[in-house]
Amino acid sequence: MKRLEACIAGIKPLDETAFEAARERLRNQARPAGSLGVLEEVGARLAAIFGTLDVHLRKRIVVACAGDHGICEEGVSLFPPEVTAQMVYNFVQGGASINVLARHAKARVAAADLGVDAAFDPELPIFHKKVRRGTRNFSRGPALTREEAVRSIEAGIEIVEELAAEGPFHLLGTGDMGIGNTSPSTAIIAAFSGLSAADVTGRGTGLDDGALAHKIEVIERGLALNRPDPADPIDVLAKVGGLEIGGIAGLVIGAAGYGIPVICDGLISTAGALIACELAPAARPYLFAGHHSVEIGHRFMLEHLRLRPLLDLRFRLGEGTGAALAMELMDAATRILAEIKTFEEVAIADAQR
Amino acid sequence: MKRLEACIAGIKPLDETAFEAARERLRNQARPAGSLGVLEEVGARLAAIFGTLDVHLRKRIVVACAGDHGICEEGVSLFPPEVTAQMVYNFVQGGASINVLARHAKARVAAADLGVDAAFDPELPIFHKKVRRGTRNFSRGPALTREEAVRSIEAGIEIVEELAAEGPFHLLGTGDMGIGNTSPSTAIIAAFSGLSAADVTGRGTGLDDGALAHKIEVIERGLALNRPDPADPIDVLAKVGGLEIGGIAGLVIGAAGYGIPVICDGLISTAGALIACELAPAARPYLFAGHHSVEIGHRFMLEHLRLRPLLDLRFRLGEGTGAALAMELMDAATRILAEIKTFEEVAIADAQR
Repeated sequence: MKRLEACIAGIKPLDETAFEAARERLRNQARPAGSLGVLEEVGARLAAIFGTLDVHLRKRIVVACAGDHGICEEGVSLFPPEVTAQMVYNFVQGGASINVLARHAKARVAAADLGVDAAFDPELPIFHKKVRRGTRNFSRGPALTREEAVRSIEAGIEIVEELAAEGPFHLLGTGDMGIGNTSPSTAIIAAFSGLSAADVTGRGTGLDDGALAHKIEVIERGLALNRPDPADPIDVLAKVGGLEIGGIAGLVIGAAGYGIPVICDGLISTAGALIACELAPAARPYLFAGHHSVEIGHRFMLEHLRLRPLLDLRFRLGEGTGAALAMELMDAATRILAEIKTFEEVAIADAQR
Repeated sequence: MKRLEACIAGIKPLDETAFEAARERLRNQARPAGSLGVLEEVGARLAAIFGTLDVHLRKRIVVACAGDHGICEEGVSLFPPEVTAQMVYNFVQGGASINVLARHAKARVAAADLGVDAAFDPELPIFHKKVRRGTRNFSRGPALTREEAVRSIEAGIEIVEELAAEGPFHLLGTGDMGIGNTSPSTAIIAAFSGLSAADVTGRGTGLDDGALAHKIEVIERGLALNRPDPADPIDVLAKVGGLEIGGIAGLVIGAAGYGIPVICDGLISTAGALIACELAPAARPYLFAGHHSVEIGHRFMLEHLRLRPLLDLRFRLGEGTGAALAMELMDAATRILAEIKTFEEVAIADAQR
């Protein structure tokens, strides 16, 4: 818990002077005021994070956190739990969706085992942060102990520390892999929002009507049994959460602690970001939303976090794919701020013509 | 007219075999079916355009077509007409918004004078395709003669021909610059949709309520006076259109003729694309929508063209900025199709582990 508390205490507020200077430069560029919409806000916020109007998001990393879920015993997913471990190997081999989209975004992919129900070779080039082999079935009791929940968040912070120790980096994307993990994510949303599971449960990777009704019933049961306390984010994570979700919360807090902007992805990654911001409100200004999930619970979280996703391409995959794709737009926002000439700069060029 | 007719006659249908093979590969990739949403459709369509599942959008060009508008006499824009020519110089100097976003997208920017009310030095490195120095005021009579309208479309086709003569290219973005050009674009939408100007007129680069009401009244007057015939797209372009809009229509038809995917941008560019597709329905499969404009008329056009924009970042700029930014997503779609492993490929890798 000390590592978590120290990291939260170390999060610095953004540089308001750089923020105002960025907004003034954007206003004075030779184009109608506000005409580059959302990317102006992104550019100004990045300027405030880095304390400069010439931000370069050179080194980019996507961390895909993996974990298994006891709730799969209830038949809430179309895929068998073994797929979680298989996908970790696929991440390492470079053939998964996140590898392809991260390559496109010039980002490195790091996979992390927070709680996969498989024994990985210690030589496998991933972050080995297993807290336990999968969560417990939260429809029959708490998913994690409080200590395990804290440990998963601290593991995420450690990953940021270890990455930073290799050299500075400028943009972190968060991703997830965990068969069954829309169920804990949805339970987290219900716990914080007070909405019913029926209001916020989606079809995950493709459930039909009957399977959706079953998933809602399982989540409702878990919430009624565990009564997670929304005023205590670690209690929510422990009662109905997941280890990769805790890891993602740690990534967000860790990135904010290191002054690095961090992008959340879809439903699961945003559930982690929500826990992070409930624990550490100072982390929120470092957080950007990459992609709008088709999962209905996502909307609640984004409103709660006051985030507008950069993309809405009907992805429903996770892994960090939406975060990776959004990295290009974040980079474009830095170029807009730094490179589009102001009316004054154009006039100088005109005078020289 | 012969060049236009020949180009339209030469547009080939897409390769259905490649399209089906692409869809099958996407379905078999190691991820939930359909989970990469819109980019799967984009990837399959690009495969069908190029006749291969391994598309590389290496050489990318954004053509920004410029023209002036007689309708500016009616006070429909916040900016003076001189800005059109100034922005053409800014495009050449590389400091405009489109230069910055095209650099980011690894695309070349080519500016084209279709009808700017200024005499450019013939040495200025732009496409010199001036049909006349600005359109006539369409609230007092036709904006263009029928011959001028055809000439502007053929000029767009010539630009594609001249670019292709320099070497193959793989992706074309369309952009516009023309003070006052939301008015002709809106009139074009009203003409094709049968909707009133009040229904489809937006605030352009930032009109207040009074100025908006005036703009609607001016457009209504132009439509009532000219009675453009929606069954005759060249009549619509001539009566209420613009020269850069005709140029963009020519770019779309020309790109389709050369088998090159083409991205439309915001309101003005999409008005050009609408005229292109009304003239040449075979061009539509080559067309992609880059960005959702905040201008209300844009929605009608996209529905009519059955296009879903890749981005919605509240841009209201034009110049091709939304098209340029979408190029990265189109490129990501090609990598998704080619590089994400199928379940079979993953199993082979597993067996070798």
